[in-house]
Amino acid sequence: MIQWKNLDELVSFERLKELKNEVDLKAVLSGAGAADRVAEYQIPIAAGLVWNYAARQVDDKVLEALGNLAAEAQLQEKYQALYNGEMINTGEKRLVLHQLTRGQLGDPVKADGVDKRKFYEEQRERIADFADRVHSGEITNGAGEPFTSVCQIGIGGSDLGPRAMYIALHNWAAQTGNLLMDAHFISNVDPDDPAGVLSEIDPAHTIFILVSKSGTTLETLTNEAFVKKALISRGLNPADHMIAVTSETSPLAKDSGYLAAFFMDDYIGGRYSSTSAVGGAVLSLAFGPEVFARFLSGAAAADKAATEPDLLKNAAMLDACIGVYERNVQGCRATAVLPYSQALSRFPAHLQQLDMESNGKSVNRFGEPVNYPTGPVLFGEPGTNGQHSFYQLLHQGTDIIPLQFVGFRESQLATDVEIQGSTSQQKLGANVAAQIVAFACGKEDSDNNKAFAGGRPSSIITGDRLTPESLGALLSHFENKVMFQGFLWNLNSFDQEGVQLGKTLSKKVLAGQTDGALQAYAGLLGI
Amino acid sequence: MIQWKNLDELVSFERLKELKNEVDLKAVLSGAGAADRVAEYQIPIAAGLVWNYAARQVDDKVLEALGNLAAEAQLQEKYQALYNGEMINTGEKRLVLHQLTRGQLGDPVKADGVDKRKFYEEQRERIADFADRVHSGEITNGAGEPFTSVCQIGIGGSDLGPRAMYIALHNWAAQTGNLLMDAHFISNVDPDDPAGVLSEIDPAHTIFILVSKSGTTLETLTNEAFVKKALISRGLNPADHMIAVTSETSPLAKDSGYLAAFFMDDYIGGRYSSTSAVGGAVLSLAFGPEVFARFLSGAAAADKAATEPDLLKNAAMLDACIGVYERNVQGCRATAVLPYSQALSRFPAHLQQLDMESNGKSVNRFGEPVNYPTGPVLFGEPGTNGQHSFYQLLHQGTDIIPLQFVGFRESQLATDVEIQGSTSQQKLGANVAAQIVAFACGKEDSDNNKAFAGGRPSSIITGDRLTPESLGALLSHFENKVMFQGFLWNLNSFDQEGVQLGKTLSKKVLAGQTDGALQAYAGLLGI
Repeated sequence: MIQWKNLDELVSFERLKELKNEVDLKAVLSGAGAADRVAEYQIPIAAGLVWNYAARQVDDKVLEALGNLAAEAQLQEKYQALYNGEMINTGEKRLVLHQLTRGQLGDPVKADGVDKRKFYEEQRERIADFADRVHSGEITNGAGEPFTSVCQIGIGGSDLGPRAMYIALHNWAAQTGNLLMDAHFISNVDPDDPAGVLSEIDPAHTIFILVSKSGTTLETLTNEAFVKKALISRGLNPADHMIAVTSETSPLAKDSGYLAAFFMDDYIGGRYSSTSAVGGAVLSLAFGPEVFARFLSGAAAADKAATEPDLLKNAAMLDACIGVYERNVQGCRATAVLPYSQALSRFPAHLQQLDMESNGKSVNRFGEPVNYPTGPVLFGEPGTNGQHSFYQLLHQGTDIIPLQFVGFRESQLATDVEIQGSTSQQKLGANVAAQIVAFACGKEDSDNNKAFAGGRPSSIITGDRLTPESLGALLSHFENKVMFQGFLWNLNSFDQEGVQLGKTLSKKVLAGQTDGALQAYAGLLGI
Repeated sequence: MIQWKNLDELVSFERLKELKNEVDLKAVLSGAGAADRVAEYQIPIAAGLVWNYAARQVDDKVLEALGNLAAEAQLQEKYQALYNGEMINTGEKRLVLHQLTRGQLGDPVKADGVDKRKFYEEQRERIADFADRVHSGEITNGAGEPFTSVCQIGIGGSDLGPRAMYIALHNWAAQTGNLLMDAHFISNVDPDDPAGVLSEIDPAHTIFILVSKSGTTLETLTNEAFVKKALISRGLNPADHMIAVTSETSPLAKDSGYLAAFFMDDYIGGRYSSTSAVGGAVLSLAFGPEVFARFLSGAAAADKAATEPDLLKNAAMLDACIGVYERNVQGCRATAVLPYSQALSRFPAHLQQLDMESNGKSVNRFGEPVNYPTGPVLFGEPGTNGQHSFYQLLHQGTDIIPLQFVGFRESQLATDVEIQGSTSQQKLGANVAAQIVAFACGKEDSDNNKAFAGGRPSSIITGDRLTPESLGALLSHFENKVMFQGFLWNLNSFDQEGVQLGKTLSKKVLAGQTDGALQAYAGLLGI
């Protein structure tokens, strides 16, 4: 029997609070046992990825307390309930089924009269078939010419994830002969976004993917109109160039203005939709359906790994628990994601949405205010770039910010140069290893300005190479971590009521129904 | 006589602390006087930009206390000392002269035996002349063909600012006939960064700009070697394709391997270098020297505006003071920069370095530990994109995060579409106006999950259009804000000792001089 309790109602959380500042990171990572600790404190995720938490502020006592917390909070039971189709998104009264887009973790889930796994599979196959026909030249533009590019029109969850995944695999695909079409993205209602993208592509040979679950997203419909106008002005027929990804109940679903429509549903939140048709259409067109399937297989394997009941063998679950320890016991308010991989340049922006939109909430799943901090600010940029930017504050600032590194042993393009006895890839790896130790252990110096206090926790996910499989596993790790954290905080991680008020007020401005401050601010913007 | 005191040594700060939670933002922005407040609480910056702080948590009492703080902290005297050439960067024993790259605010400053304003002017003119000769076809590649692209090789301050400025003006330049060469950037030591960029450009018609003040930056020299190897493999002579931006004392300065070398010096920190030769070379080549001069003129005008002694007429100084009130009295730990302009997509990443690297410190300018929080985490993405991502947490999360909006009344490309009675540009403006009011005033609801507490402070900088002048003013506003804040916290905002330890340890890894944790982590990365 699952019980949904607030974090501060859990006995094990009271015990955890007693362990504040339990671990001297500097001591445990400087001492003789440091190498053993690094070897011991790691858990495989999937697709060759391993999560190492030796530089987090934990020891046997903290880990035991976290084990009790995970058990008392029934994290595994809740995860099981989720993938077995219980109504976990209570606010919107929806199931949470994004994991079914990539595998069958538990029981068959039936909703809306159909087996949902089959439904998602069917959509994936329909997309694969469509993409194959585009690639083979069977589906062409109005002039019978092949399409060479794809352009996604979407915002938020219909943009950040798919865009980050495309960028992440672009070089890998180029290197392995899988770059079949180049992809572009339009998201912002700022007219300079669509106008700028359109000026850089060849619309006559581009398929546009309109992505909106509801079919009513203001930005997306506006940008669709923008693109259609541009196509028409070039003598092109929009219906020859556009496909839709939407829900079957949306107004777009039956619109004859599209070459095809592919479906997701209300059980897949935008920020969890990269493995659904939302990511599937653009990634299958860009890289081919097989690459997309490989991406899904990596995610499925990591989902499976997250079903492990033993906390010390479950990376996503332990990552979530340590994060709550840092946030609610150690008092940290932000976390940085630092991939040492240029290909992951927009992965932090995707995680920023995934994490902050899921768990940036002040009421529990029953709508009652909670009395503890929930989701932190999440930000990040790729290393080594960040080292020459905001790392100053991470090392010597007055707040402690836990860090999540990602690093690979091989590059994607396999082109390198050896300078001063090492390759660029080795320099990259040396830098991330050095940073972890620098943050944890610090350095004494008689000049305070050159001293490093250390004690700054981090973990790292390592892998051989960023491939479709490892990218899928990486994505799934963070999705599951966020969901486990939502369970710990007793939040509904699947709604986003916080975006509604701005929408409502913005409509008022556009309708001229303003007074007071709203009118005054609209005036500043010339409206 | 200037006195450098810690924030908590100031009498006026004690008074300010008594004003915690003084202002009920919801009340002042919902009430009858709200429109008046919006009209009153604004200060012109320069180039048509106006900073409006009606939605910050201030009233007459707080403003008076901040006025006393600014006076007691001698903010204007310190700013004057800086631009008149006192040694403000005490840690590195350097003057701070980036403002001389764009104007003469005070006395002539002589250093290294020369008038520094003249020196920077001379470099700007040398770059202008070089760029003109490239554009006219006088300077060509080895085959006598014109150069069509430029590619900057730099990292941190030699990358983020110039890249953000290039992106900010790209569409404007395309629209106004000023896009003379397209620009690209290589920064990361990850070999996939240079390999990826090289695969997308035409190296035979590209000028590469190597930017490193010291001429010793690991990433930059490695990437230069990478590029040179690629050029040679294509039968091209690197010396026909490369220019350097460096200090006169660097090993690069006299290297015959460059078409030309342009100079900055130790008095310009990397993160303050966009208006020096560091930004000058790439922006003058991409957009022409006149556009770069216009950018400088906007920055110069905002620098001048920051010399205003009256706090209520000095946007940068008041912005800094309110920021300290939020950080040190109200207890906020992060701040978000949210430009409603797709062209400013990388502007937050530049500000992230500018702010966090300048003020992310725990010791004062004398190397003594401070007992109060200093620089916050800074992050951001363009609106309306962010609205569909992390705004959930900003609206309904458990922490209050002050926001800095930016918005323009006109787009850059002047192509728009009218849907449902409004243009995209109007929708964009309506959204930012709506967000400010939503954050400040919130909304009651019997369903807590749909309720918004409000009380979340923001300010907005508005302008007609993002042009070279307004971009320069925008940049300068934030530079000056950061410097004023450094004065308040009594920090040296111009060094970055926090980046050194990672460099040292990384060299150890590459030299194989590791044991313990460092060796173990290097092993995880395959080294």
